[in-house]
Amino acid sequence: MSLTNEQIISLTGQYRNELSEVLELDPHTVYSFPRTAVLEDFPIVSASTVEELSSGLGLERLARTFDHTILKPEAGPADIEKLCSEALEYNFYSVCVNSLYAAQAKNILKSSNVHLAVVVGFPLGAMASSVKAAEAAQAVFDGADEIDMVLQVGMLKAGKFREVYEDIKAVVTVSEVPVKVIIETCLLSDEEKIKACLLSVFAGAAFVKTSTGFSSGGATAHDVSLMRSVVGNACGVKASGGVRTLEAVLEMLKAGANRIGTSSGAKILNRK
Amino acid sequence: MSLTNEQIISLTGQYRNELSEVLELDPHTVYSFPRTAVLEDFPIVSASTVEELSSGLGLERLARTFDHTILKPEAGPADIEKLCSEALEYNFYSVCVNSLYAAQAKNILKSSNVHLAVVVGFPLGAMASSVKAAEAAQAVFDGADEIDMVLQVGMLKAGKFREVYEDIKAVVTVSEVPVKVIIETCLLSDEEKIKACLLSVFAGAAFVKTSTGFSSGGATAHDVSLMRSVVGNACGVKASGGVRTLEAVLEMLKAGANRIGTSSGAKILNRK
Repeated sequence: MSLTNEQIISLTGQYRNELSEVLELDPHTVYSFPRTAVLEDFPIVSASTVEELSSGLGLERLARTFDHTILKPEAGPADIEKLCSEALEYNFYSVCVNSLYAAQAKNILKSSNVHLAVVVGFPLGAMASSVKAAEAAQAVFDGADEIDMVLQVGMLKAGKFREVYEDIKAVVTVSEVPVKVIIETCLLSDEEKIKACLLSVFAGAAFVKTSTGFSSGGATAHDVSLMRSVVGNACGVKASGGVRTLEAVLEMLKAGANRIGTSSGAKILNRK
Repeated sequence: MSLTNEQIISLTGQYRNELSEVLELDPHTVYSFPRTAVLEDFPIVSASTVEELSSGLGLERLARTFDHTILKPEAGPADIEKLCSEALEYNFYSVCVNSLYAAQAKNILKSSNVHLAVVVGFPLGAMASSVKAAEAAQAVFDGADEIDMVLQVGMLKAGKFREVYEDIKAVVTVSEVPVKVIIETCLLSDEEKIKACLLSVFAGAAFVKTSTGFSSGGATAHDVSLMRSVVGNACGVKASGGVRTLEAVLEMLKAGANRIGTSSGAKILNRK
């Protein structure tokens, strides 16, 4: 059942107090983790400017909200090369790949403005925490500028909040680059989504992210709006999973997203 | 397009020579890697005994071919506990879980006949090779008796055979327990399935395994038969993905499987 805006705001306050007590954190300071440049680079797009983005010079700004993504298991080196070429052509913010291809992608992108995002514990989030940290460390060694990790969905649903928090924190600590936390909204209740966002912020995430694209559903405006309401300006919101048209992109930006994960970026920007 | 038995046999010989040359291995000795006890414990079930297995005492033997499996991301500690309880009750060969839950499962199973299998690089197989090895090492440290790894599907399809071989070998070397290699048959042509099986045998796999259950298809009798034809007695064949009935189990055993991965083991054995 979907919560109303008022319920989301009320529960956010309640859960923030409860979770910070469980985790023995000061609820007034937990949002003050060392900030990355992510939010200065990517201010939240106001509703009045969203329409402008979809035409003229706006398309260039729009491209800089895209993580150009290929994660399917059958993707090979030639697919990664094509992905990176397109990202350079359209000046997307980043490419997003599995850790097997981090070094190859970085080698193509290294002297450009296009960043490298690498997924960790993907797509189930049920990898041992030490191994998630190892995968993040390897990805950063291979040149990752951002890490997109999946949180422990099963632990979250079981109320094991310390485990979920420590898992994110382990990746944040080892990465030393902005970390996005994929909360896999389609498997969570609204209450669980709020808790997932709070735990991500507490643990130092740079972004919360809706979906892996490998489960039963993708980004929705309701979920993006909920996530932005919970995290406020404390971190970014990335909408991903099933975002395949300009209309969908604009809907997500209006709802509060400041990053878009999609495999369809080239198609979307070619439309005009 | 499906290959005939004759084509499979012919291509197996051809690819064995080609791949062993690429990998600089002696094609006559590559099948003689140090053997595990897996095949002595699990002889290939002959067609004449399969029917016997489905009744009376046979059900107990049947249970010992099952890897009792839960891998969905939303599974929590309570689901793992239930899985292990059922495995103990039915005396399944093993439980199969994500690495996050290896230690918990081992703690429940430690003084029993039920083994612990842990998935690695799951389900995409596109994790950096060093990280797959790290996940396997962590799993064995946590008590894994077997490792179920996913091979590099994209690299295989791109003809990067040395990379695929080295990736498997890295996990086999670090694990020191039987390693099953999931080849994800639904994403491969028959020719690619043959190569995947040969590379797995070359690298010291104890089993080849059909499917993750997270892609577009599961085990088929054709694929199990192909895989058994390629690996002969050099390693086991595990049928997994969509095996949910006694009929399906028997079909897989007849086709040449000697291990079954399923979440439905309790339901299957309760039928009688």
